[in-house]
Amino acid sequence: MAASGVDSLLVTHLPDVMYLCGFTGSNAAVVITAKRAALYTDGRYTAQAKEEARGVRVVIAKKSAQLEAIAFLISLGVASIAFDPETTTVSTLNAMRASLPKERRAKTLVPLKAPLVSELRMVKDADEVERMQAAAALGDQLFNTILPSMQPGVTEVEIAAELEHAARRGGAEGMSFSTIVASGVRSSFPHGTASVAKLPQKGFVTLDFGVILRGYCSDMTRTVHMGKASVEERSAYEAVLEAQEQGVKAVAAGVTCGEVDYACRSVLEKHKLAKFFTHSTGHGVGLEIHEQPRIAKEQAKVLESGMVITIEPGVYMPGHFGIRIEDTVVVTKSGCGILTKATKAWIEL
Amino acid sequence: MAASGVDSLLVTHLPDVMYLCGFTGSNAAVVITAKRAALYTDGRYTAQAKEEARGVRVVIAKKSAQLEAIAFLISLGVASIAFDPETTTVSTLNAMRASLPKERRAKTLVPLKAPLVSELRMVKDADEVERMQAAAALGDQLFNTILPSMQPGVTEVEIAAELEHAARRGGAEGMSFSTIVASGVRSSFPHGTASVAKLPQKGFVTLDFGVILRGYCSDMTRTVHMGKASVEERSAYEAVLEAQEQGVKAVAAGVTCGEVDYACRSVLEKHKLAKFFTHSTGHGVGLEIHEQPRIAKEQAKVLESGMVITIEPGVYMPGHFGIRIEDTVVVTKSGCGILTKATKAWIEL
Repeated sequence: MAASGVDSLLVTHLPDVMYLCGFTGSNAAVVITAKRAALYTDGRYTAQAKEEARGVRVVIAKKSAQLEAIAFLISLGVASIAFDPETTTVSTLNAMRASLPKERRAKTLVPLKAPLVSELRMVKDADEVERMQAAAALGDQLFNTILPSMQPGVTEVEIAAELEHAARRGGAEGMSFSTIVASGVRSSFPHGTASVAKLPQKGFVTLDFGVILRGYCSDMTRTVHMGKASVEERSAYEAVLEAQEQGVKAVAAGVTCGEVDYACRSVLEKHKLAKFFTHSTGHGVGLEIHEQPRIAKEQAKVLESGMVITIEPGVYMPGHFGIRIEDTVVVTKSGCGILTKATKAWIEL
Repeated sequence: MAASGVDSLLVTHLPDVMYLCGFTGSNAAVVITAKRAALYTDGRYTAQAKEEARGVRVVIAKKSAQLEAIAFLISLGVASIAFDPETTTVSTLNAMRASLPKERRAKTLVPLKAPLVSELRMVKDADEVERMQAAAALGDQLFNTILPSMQPGVTEVEIAAELEHAARRGGAEGMSFSTIVASGVRSSFPHGTASVAKLPQKGFVTLDFGVILRGYCSDMTRTVHMGKASVEERSAYEAVLEAQEQGVKAVAAGVTCGEVDYACRSVLEKHKLAKFFTHSTGHGVGLEIHEQPRIAKEQAKVLESGMVITIEPGVYMPGHFGIRIEDTVVVTKSGCGILTKATKAWIEL
């Protein structure tokens, strides 16, 4: 905070709140000064906040957690209140401004130039990496569990249902995003969430899913083939796999995100498939499924040890098929540790 | 739009986008003028947008869907571009401003005074009510399915797992929020999402859950008792039930949201339990689990036919127990139709 030139900070984005003090309720504002930290929430969370929150004084707001948090900072005599413009809506900012004494409305609320808490969250500590390993291991287990159920005629949602049920039984609090089961021609939809379509006799099925375990998200994608593949399908798979492996190889502290993206993309270029790779290579993962940094074309952001990111190139031939392979990895000094252990070898069911 | 004095509208909130054109992707901007409507998304959604979007021209943005949508409006010569300040972050607004020609930065982007699309979404048409009925019916079915599994020693997450699995098998795209299974003393947490706690020999269990079916959310809460209840527990349950029923009775077109809240709250006051009713009475439901209007103290908003809202009073005795009962209802001219059909009678398992 001192480096950012602010003497108080208001945090309202819920994953940030959880990161800072452990509270998981749906309404919260954390205020921080050099000497104090307080969590404001509402009456629904009196008992839960007491149980969960660490390192903060808990205040149950009478009306608005955010506005009462701000009033508290003003009563302490702070010069400015920094907020995160990435997670604060225009309406909320207006309401916060209007709650201030008139002479303080113009200058007191200051947007953070760098998202302080997101930046802290980007680099995971040992405890977080352990949780993410456990979440990834549960993901691997689910993939292995679901394979025998993948029979022609079974619907995508039935596969999703079984996978999600196994996730819950494995201890997951929930899924980190809508489970993607995209079969046959639907595999050409990069975000084809499970539908009532039936798995085909012949064709690809892309599974992209994640669990939330002890607060942390896993994220993995595997593409398998039902029946015998054509030469074109098989060679496209091998090209995506080569791209994915080159992407993983490129990861290390000190490398830019753009360089990792290029490592994937250039393999697909070599195979004349780059124009079918219509998205970026990956993203950070943690308490949220999409976090900083973005692994995309020309991103200058430099990877640091402890960042956890996905490497997930894919190719999508509209009207034909699609293939994506994704691992979650933790950046280390000399390379990375692959959290996703499930096989990426060709699978024909 | 004409009534709001705007000649073009930018819509980026995803449920609003789905409402307007049916597209369900995770990145979208819809622009509307008197004569045109276009959907901007990215390359991941080329095939999906073509399949899903109705009534709009689809444009695949090269870099930013939002900024290219704005550039298109500027190229049409619009005087102003209205946006929803409730769902637009400060950062997004700044980026949109910066993308405009310099002389247009100060005045072109105008916050909507009333959230146009949210207001349209508040009142459901016949097709939407039918979908919400189907979602509620699936919720009822899940409640009945899960009751036999509720045995002492079974964990809350096991109950949630089974319920969510049955939801998926019943066609749900997912759950509309983290399933709440709060047993024993945890029932005093109004938002006690399923934990590894075991259902007790004796005590309340609150189940609060919802499915998403064909895009629309259900929402219901039932509280059952394991083993024999004390006189205090039983009478608290009957008081909450009476409050819930009086709340439902108070619903009708022309009544204010505050009056419905008061109908619930005053019953609990009569029973000297109002201080344990620590949240508002309900909320709108539809494509999102929490929509307008809010059914809370002194809310002057007037109910209209076709609004779909929850009525969910509860009492929470910290360290002891909690009880909540919730139905989703559709407002009619003379009263309401109760979408949730599961019994609210006392259940002792």
